[in-house]
Amino acid sequence: MQLFYLNNLESNFLELPKEESNHCIKVLRMGIGDELHLTDGNGLLCKAKIITPDNKRCTVEITERNYNYQKRNHYLHIAVAPTKNIARLEWFLEKATEIGIDEITPIICEHSERTSINMERLDKIIVSAMKQSLKAYKPRLNEPIRILDFLKQPFEGKKYVAYCEGDDRVHLKNIYTPTTPALVLIGPEGDFSKQEVAEFIANNYVPITLGDCRLRTETAALAACFFINFMNE
Amino acid sequence: MQLFYLNNLESNFLELPKEESNHCIKVLRMGIGDELHLTDGNGLLCKAKIITPDNKRCTVEITERNYNYQKRNHYLHIAVAPTKNIARLEWFLEKATEIGIDEITPIICEHSERTSINMERLDKIIVSAMKQSLKAYKPRLNEPIRILDFLKQPFEGKKYVAYCEGDDRVHLKNIYTPTTPALVLIGPEGDFSKQEVAEFIANNYVPITLGDCRLRTETAALAACFFINFMNE
Repeated sequence: MQLFYLNNLESNFLELPKEESNHCIKVLRMGIGDELHLTDGNGLLCKAKIITPDNKRCTVEITERNYNYQKRNHYLHIAVAPTKNIARLEWFLEKATEIGIDEITPIICEHSERTSINMERLDKIIVSAMKQSLKAYKPRLNEPIRILDFLKQPFEGKKYVAYCEGDDRVHLKNIYTPTTPALVLIGPEGDFSKQEVAEFIANNYVPITLGDCRLRTETAALAACFFINFMNE
Repeated sequence: MQLFYLNNLESNFLELPKEESNHCIKVLRMGIGDELHLTDGNGLLCKAKIITPDNKRCTVEITERNYNYQKRNHYLHIAVAPTKNIARLEWFLEKATEIGIDEITPIICEHSERTSINMERLDKIIVSAMKQSLKAYKPRLNEPIRILDFLKQPFEGKKYVAYCEGDDRVHLKNIYTPTTPALVLIGPEGDFSKQEVAEFIANNYVPITLGDCRLRTETAALAACFFINFMNE
């Protein structure tokens, strides 16, 4: 099954973007009548067949529409501090998209060593992981935001924060209830500051641990993603 | 806590290798009497203090020995086909070491696109992940082996194989019993061949799934690692 991404699938007759046309005709050598799949990244998965196999402007006709394709039974938002080595954050985005995540917010913290990221590049990674893992929902990637501003935003569900120190922490597996919308905060390499932790508690974030191991930022973020999905399967 | 790796910690007075000496004295700027930790990668974690802060031949004295440091309650062996892009296998090794794994075997399958790997480089990645995540057990990395030869090797525990097709598969979470030693096979990008799958069944491997998502080889291997550790926590 070959999946292509077009953010608008309203019409039944569509032209693939130049890059996708080339991939479809030149790389995959598809021809007239060959079947492919399209998603709008918003839950819609369509079957389509090739009308004109042009490697710059390939046109297709939609033959079948499946709405809410493989819609998950829970909502997961992970807010994570961008890693100093951006490849580690990119890796997290790819894996989280494969496994299942709805929303990601890069948070800038007191101990953050990186405050700027290339959103376009990260978006490309998410799209390619979505296509590769045959998903019809594209995770939403928010603009980076300062942690104290992020805390002011409302969230309809349970809010958790993972950090390294503190005896008041509970393992995520012992407090998460399946199908509950979850927001999990993951700190930077230098962990959250004491002031930040105080703010989390004041804003009703539950302190959690993801196990006994000392995990890197991107590993902790992926662990949370695995746990939540695992508990909802 | 700074952790250093020396495969022999029998003596109480030790000289760190050149690279470690440099890291300790030049990079971390440690001096006489400063405390550091050492592991032999075999469960022994030692406290030590610096005697001679030489950046080529730093000597230390062991002041405390902890055996079976954070010994896990289960044994996990993952046999995985090396990925075409070796960075993906390296990434799995780093993450699996952080999360917890005992043994890894690269398996050469019918559909394997890669049959050779740089063992020395992979070993370095495992050691660095072990030190970074403060572990005292170094996962064992075996030489690559053809899958049909691997199947002939004995394993004292439950044997599972994850592949994409087939209705006879059960989710790992529904058949794994905590503390059971587990061996999990993960196939190459092109999945296992029909003949290989038949051999697995003949050799008492239980066909499993790791969820509904289509996962890349290295993601599936990590998913199995997460699941087994998660269920044993």
